[in-house]
Order: sequence, then structure tokens, then C-alpha cells
Amino acid sequence: MSGPGSGGVFVHGHALCESETIGAGTRIWAFAHVMKGAVVGRDCNIGDHAFIETGARIGDRVTIKNQAMLWDGVEIGDDVFVGPGVCFTNDRHPRSPRLPLPAVARRYREPQRWLAPTRVERGASLGAGCVILAGVTIGAYAMIAAGAVVTGNIPAHALAAGAPARQRGWVCRCGARLRRAAGTAWRCRECGESFDERTEGECTSLERSC
Amino acid sequence: MSGPGSGGVFVHGHALCESETIGAGTRIWAFAHVMKGAVVGRDCNIGDHAFIETGARIGDRVTIKNQAMLWDGVEIGDDVFVGPGVCFTNDRHPRSPRLPLPAVARRYREPQRWLAPTRVERGASLGAGCVILAGVTIGAYAMIAAGAVVTGNIPAHALAAGAPARQRGWVCRCGARLRRAAGTAWRCRECGESFDERTEGECTSLERSC
Amino acid sequence: MSGPGSGGVFVHGHALCESETIGAGTRIWAFAHVMKGAVVGRDCNIGDHAFIETGARIGDRVTIKNQAMLWDGVEIGDDVFVGPGVCFTNDRHPRSPRLPLPAVARRYREPQRWLAPTRVERGASLGAGCVILAGVTIGAYAMIAAGAVVTGNIPAHALAAGAPARQRGWVCRCGARLRRAAGTAWRCRECGESFDERTEGECTSLERSC
Repeated sequence: MSGPGSGGVFVHGHALCESETIGAGTRIWAFAHVMKGAVVGRDCNIGDHAFIETGARIGDRVTIKNQAMLWDGVEIGDDVFVGPGVCFTNDRHPRSPRLPLPAVARRYREPQRWLAPTRVERGASLGAGCVILAGVTIGAYAMIAAGAVVTGNIPAHALAAGAPARQRGWVCRCGARLRRAAGTAWRCRECGESFDERTEGECTSLERSC
Repeated sequence: MSGPGSGGVFVHGHALCESETIGAGTRIWAFAHVMKGAVVGRDCNIGDHAFIETGARIGDRVTIKNQAMLWDGVEIGDDVFVGPGVCFTNDRHPRSPRLPLPAVARRYREPQRWLAPTRVERGASLGAGCVILAGVTIGAYAMIAAGAVVTGNIPAHALAAGAPARQRGWVCRCGARLRRAAGTAWRCRECGESFDERTEGECTSLERSC
Repeated sequence: MSGPGSGGVFVHGHALCESETIGAGTRIWAFAHVMKGAVVGRDCNIGDHAFIETGARIGDRVTIKNQAMLWDGVEIGDDVFVGPGVCFTNDRHPRSPRLPLPAVARRYREPQRWLAPTRVERGASLGAGCVILAGVTIGAYAMIAAGAVVTGNIPAHALAAGAPARQRGWVCRCGARLRRAAGTAWRCRECGESFDERTEGECTSLERSC
């Protein structure tokens, strides 16, 4: 039941795996398609009907739920959760590439004219059905609520929701919502971790303090 | 053309049906996957690329359109319409289960720590591309507009739309929008049914009056 | 690797193409399903897991990205871009067709009682994950932002975003956003095309002036 890229890789008999750069322990389920040249780390789980295009790069222990679509230019850090039906993009102003207009032909001649790379950092979670606009970075351990449309960068540990996605709070590495302890200190009731809020200009970020 | 669970079950030659608990008259179309242990009633129609996970339970005469995803913990009553691309969820704070953190390992050790069940009651309709957050109940004959993100319970016969989904009116069992007849009385112009609105506290519900 | 409808049509070995009315140069990728009677023009590109139903009509040089779903009653002009996961609909008030109620049985007896046709005109782009309500027309060269829910008609050249989708500006044929030159004149900095805004009643449209 295991196809190209094996060596501890499980490829379901109804999946299509053309990549040879897949880490040991990774499982690829029915009707999923991992294209040639896609890089997938160790111990990942890639659900049914998912699509990983040539040029996408995925870390270790990543969960890619069913129907998620990852394109060329998408980079996923270790331990990320990509929910079901999450749709990445890599073009901010798409046109059908064969549209007979010189400006369109010129644009699609070279990737650097249209391809905007997207990064999801270590441990982040993207809820079901999110749409991620090309060119954004989603910080480590951020959590994007189901159904959100992410149009800009999301700070590490942020909880973001809505369309366009806006920050609604902070989450712990474990995924639980953080409560304000005092002043700029935040604490997780689930696992006891503490964090400090730090503001520079209009940008507020969170750092683990223990 | 009919696989496991046959006895009047039609399974398309490109579908994958591993369940043996599927009612007679049910049809499962190309590239759909019904997992072992999923329970599907009689005379259902399951569209292309749909995914029904072990632990999902589906009533009779249910329409599951293409690409809908139903997980463990999702229960669908009789006569429900699940639109194309409808995405259920069963975890309110997902993390990649192999994320190396004790709190995450603990959480995913037992389903009761993370799995929030969702219920859709008899005759309801979920419009195309809806996202349904884990743990909600959608009442009988409710209608969720296309593209909505359902984050809380929806009363029976409610028309709900938006992200997050809010009630915008009432619908009849037949799907038509109800018009206020007088006071708390509502009537369907399509099929003539009458209903009474009833408010208890902050909660308003509708009951058939004939 | 090429199935029914060949004659310059490429059908991936994992795709399912039952239509015999597909133009030369069109490519259909893995796990996509084009049903019998669907009409697809020349030089189209139909991505993985896409679904084209009997009765859908698609022009020439159209890009249909992965997982897009096009139903009976959907008509797509030449050079249109249909983004990944775009979900059309063709029924404004869906119920499960076998719901045992005379009004529902009556409704689904004949298509004209429930099927609302949708049209996307030449050169338009539908961003990733859009949901298009049945019965709308999306004008030529319009651009629908990713994640939008289109509930009404969209004028030609309009940039529309949000749920429900509202116009936010104008775009050129090439996809670039137009800048106001002076008064009712708009100009594209990418390809130099000029346009004139024209308002009749509440309806504003754009016309190419050179």
C-alpha cells in the first residue's frame, strides 16, 4: 500500500504521491495528491482529498486535514495544524493565464511576477475552511478560527477570527486561550505557561516568560 | 459497481465505501469516502469527494452534496440537506496531535478531552460552503445560508446567515421564508402551513400550529 | 492517459471524464470529474478534485482550479479564472429532495421550479474559496476577492470582497486595480488602458475608452 517516497511512508492505495522527498512516518490518505517536488517532513498526516503542489514545503509532525490545498510558495513549519478545507493562495490578482492580453501573458511568464510566498510558523493552527491570502505570515502558535479569511500577517500566539481576520486574544502553545494575569503578563490555565506582552509601535507580540 | 454494505446500496466504481452500516437505496458517488463504522441511513445521496468519518451518524433521505466533510461526533437527522463543501469540525482548539508538549499529548489521548459533538436536526438545510463549529446544534428545518460560519446553536425553523451566523427570519418545513400573519403567527405562502412564535427569556422558537 | 472526449484533450489517469463535448487542448487533472453532457471549451485547465456537472457550460481558455464545483445552470465565459474551492450553487432554498412533504416533492419535480442559472462573463476572476449564490451574474473582467460570498450581481470590472460581497474598486482587464485619473476617468498603471465610469440611476459601470 506504499508508493514512491516510501521508507516508512504510508501512501493509501487510492492516493497519488509523486514526491520523493517525504519524511519517514508520514501518512497520505485516500484521494490525496502530493506532487513531484513537494517537500514533506517526518510524521505528518495528510488527509483525504488534500493537494500539495510542487514547490510547497511542509515541516515535521504537521497535520494537513482533508481537502486542504497547499501551493507552490507555501511553507509550513513544524507541528502546524492545517484544518479541513483550508485554502491557501499564491497569486493576489489572478487571471486565467491564457487570457489573450500582453500584460497577462507577461505576468505569467515568470513566477516572480505573480507568486507571493506564504509562511505558517511552528505550532500554529488554521481552523476549518480558512482562506489564506498570498503573501502573509502566520506566526508561531497562532490560532486562526474556522471560516476566517486571513488578509494580513498574524502575530505569534494570536487568536484571529473573521473575514478579514482580526486578533481577538492570545493562545498558549497548547492551544488554550490565555488569561491576563496582571499588566502585560498572560497565563495559561491549562498548562501553566506564562507570557509577556510587548508593544513596539502598533505591533504587539507575546513572548514566553518561563 | 456496488461495494461493501451493498443490498440496495449503490457505490460508484471510483468511490471508497468501507462502512457496512449503510441503508438500502443509498447512493455514494465518485471519489467519495465513507469510512468503516460510519452509519448512513436509507435513501441517502452522497456526492463526489464527500468524506464521512468513522463515528459520524446520518439519518434517512439525507442529501450530502459534493465535498462535504462529516467527522466523528457529527450526527445528522433524517431529511437533512448538507450543501456542497460544507465543513463540520469536532475540535474547538485544534493543535497538531503530535506537537511535542505534554498538554497537547494529554488532550489527544482520549476523545472526551477534545471531541465536541455536533447535531443537525430533521429537515434542516446547510447552504454551500458553510463551516459548522464543533459543539453546536442546528434545529429542525433551520436553513443556514451559503457561506455562513455557524458558531452557536440555531433554533428550529430559523434562517441564519453570515459569519458568525445570525438569525434573519424563519423558514417553513418546505424551505420557503415565512411571513408574519399577525402578532406571533407566521404563515407559509407556498404550502399554507402556520406557525406560532414563542419566547422564553432570550430564546424565541417556532411551533407548527396546524 | 487520455479518456473519452479526446482529440487533443488530456485526461489524467486518475480523473473521470464522461463528457464528449470538450475542446482541444483542454487538460483535466487527477480526481476531477467532468460529467456527461458538460460542455467545456478549448485550452481549458481543470484542476484536481474539480467537479463539472451535466448542464454546466464553460468557454475557452478557462482556468478551473482544484476543488471548484460547477453545477447545472452555471455558465462560464471565455478566459475566466475560477479559483480553488470556489463553490457555485443553483438552488436558493435547498431541501433534501426526498423530504416527504408535497411542497418539496413538487419543487424538485421540474428544474424550472428550483434551478436558478448563474453566469460569469468573459475574463472575470473568482478568488479562492468564494461562494456564488444561485441566480447572479458576474460581469466581464470583474474580480471577486478570496473568501467572498457573492449574493447579488457584480458589474463588469468591479473588484468585490466580503460576505456579502460589496464593490471596493475597479480592476483592469489585466487584473490590476484601476486608479482614478480625473472625474469619471480611470486608468491602469500596468497596461495603460483607460476607462470611463458611467452612472445610470443607482448603477455604475465602466467602459473601456481606448
